[in-house]
Amino acid sequence: MTVEPTGAPTAVTPLRWVGDAATGWFELLEQRALPTEERWVRYDSAQGVATGIRDMVVRGAPAIGVSAAFGVVLGARQAATDAALDAAFDVLAASRPTAVNLFWALDRMRRAVTSHGRDVAALWREAESIRTEDIAANVALGDFGAACMPDAARILTICNTGSLATAGYGTALGVIRSTHRQGRLARVLACETRPYLQGARLTMWELAKDGLPAALITDGMAGHCMARGDVDAVIVGADRIAANGDTANKIGTYQLAVLAHYHGIPFYVAAPTSTLDLATADGAGIPIEQRSAAEVVEIRGQRIAPVGVEALHPAFDVTPAALIDGIVTEAGVARKPYVRTLAELRRMR
Amino acid sequence: MTVEPTGAPTAVTPLRWVGDAATGWFELLEQRALPTEERWVRYDSAQGVATGIRDMVVRGAPAIGVSAAFGVVLGARQAATDAALDAAFDVLAASRPTAVNLFWALDRMRRAVTSHGRDVAALWREAESIRTEDIAANVALGDFGAACMPDAARILTICNTGSLATAGYGTALGVIRSTHRQGRLARVLACETRPYLQGARLTMWELAKDGLPAALITDGMAGHCMARGDVDAVIVGADRIAANGDTANKIGTYQLAVLAHYHGIPFYVAAPTSTLDLATADGAGIPIEQRSAAEVVEIRGQRIAPVGVEALHPAFDVTPAALIDGIVTEAGVARKPYVRTLAELRRMR
Repeated sequence: MTVEPTGAPTAVTPLRWVGDAATGWFELLEQRALPTEERWVRYDSAQGVATGIRDMVVRGAPAIGVSAAFGVVLGARQAATDAALDAAFDVLAASRPTAVNLFWALDRMRRAVTSHGRDVAALWREAESIRTEDIAANVALGDFGAACMPDAARILTICNTGSLATAGYGTALGVIRSTHRQGRLARVLACETRPYLQGARLTMWELAKDGLPAALITDGMAGHCMARGDVDAVIVGADRIAANGDTANKIGTYQLAVLAHYHGIPFYVAAPTSTLDLATADGAGIPIEQRSAAEVVEIRGQRIAPVGVEALHPAFDVTPAALIDGIVTEAGVARKPYVRTLAELRRMR
Repeated sequence: MTVEPTGAPTAVTPLRWVGDAATGWFELLEQRALPTEERWVRYDSAQGVATGIRDMVVRGAPAIGVSAAFGVVLGARQAATDAALDAAFDVLAASRPTAVNLFWALDRMRRAVTSHGRDVAALWREAESIRTEDIAANVALGDFGAACMPDAARILTICNTGSLATAGYGTALGVIRSTHRQGRLARVLACETRPYLQGARLTMWELAKDGLPAALITDGMAGHCMARGDVDAVIVGADRIAANGDTANKIGTYQLAVLAHYHGIPFYVAAPTSTLDLATADGAGIPIEQRSAAEVVEIRGQRIAPVGVEALHPAFDVTPAALIDGIVTEAGVARKPYVRTLAELRRMR
């Protein structure tokens, strides 16, 4: 019952279950050690998985959702009572506030508990379904998104939205992968994505593994590259998409949308429908996680600012729907007005 | 004849002459070691100063100009012939291509050589005049710029344009200093300014030394802060300003101008008139220094991207005059159309 790498054309996966449901365990690729070291961390408890999510051993909204699902499996195996399993759900739900896929995956696991109780094998099958469906959804949305890209596309992206951010293949990076598979990708421009450097550390690592043409830029170079005519499209992932299309994603996304708008460059969001939060009317209702200032004033443990200075660290921002030219999902590409088209896509799933 | 710190209200200077003209030497504060270490580097030759400029021991257009002037003094002392002094001028001119203050300072020193030959004392006096005039210009432009700032101003800036980037006081940071002296500064938001982190390392260090209220942000947070209504004005320095007002400055400046424009926030450039390059019609004529990709894929010696990946590193970008609400100089604030107002300011000097 070991989880094998997907048949999708990527060498990379950020999570795996090892062994069978009753005696096996969950593992995460330690993404904080990339690109210098590839190391897997073993988890035997829901609390452990929650800590891994909070501390960003794994990140990326879909990968967080899948990890939480397997965290429930571990929680069910530990739990002697239904109340103990409820506590496992609670600790997983508290791990990160912005990514809605987390809550979506926990809801699905909750329904499985309603059907099967604390039957570990049944819950494992549900988590595994969430995992394989995520990969399938990413391949489908990648192909939908690729159809929106021009030939010889020079695509700018931010953060890591690839195999490492999902169960495999990726969302925005899945679109880039599909464009490459169709022979129509000229180059990826990857924003390094401070403070966590997911673009430099993870996206460049993943693209190099799979042999896609890419160049790294600092976050301050994006506008300059657009002004020079070096960018044909911008595509980003999402941590939560409100009913009207407002999209929370990695800090820095919003200004890319403004810059793309100013330069007449199409701006797309790519996310599975599990990222849709139709119960939230618009971006004002999306909680934005504030993380520690220490994560800004230090880079990989090395201090870059004087001791004692203040630093801000909103981990996400909200891009208004008006700046988004299309929301690419596994069910198709939603266009404005999103309040109607997103609801339609959700009904199709 | 030791250069004392200016009476201007800042504890910081990035350069100093130690001893007399005949036997003394030039020193630069090793800015690459800040903020963790304060260390001065001694120079006894023009070649040494040129290397210090190229390797960014000193940076900031006005500070580069003053350093080059003292480099000429050292070159004149070494030179046994006029040809040897010419070679010293050449090596200094080749140190960094974008900052026009470098060429402006060398032109002034060239004229001093025309008047005084290789008279080291006379050349030292000219370099010292350039230094003290730079400080006076910065205080004057700081006061002109402060008059453009609102009360309780929340000002966003990029890179380091302060005492460390000049002979003292600063350009854009001089405006912020003057605003603070008038009791009208609420807070500085300092972009960290990748790849060299001048904002995190130098601006935050300098503002902490002088006790100004400041918070550090990553370069990707600027648009988010503007959208939240946390920015009243943006002010930046300049490495070269063309006759039409197009301004070359640190990479990342251009996109701040676009973001400010989108959010209806005034965007100012602050620079002494020595930064004006009226012989260059517009930004298309300004050479943009391309620096090493190694400076992007490593942060302070630590690798952040996989080995072998491509990275872009334009060190500067050009902000079109249309996006600039005012150019603050020691002779006053130029407004559009800059082709007329900048020429008038230059004539006033």
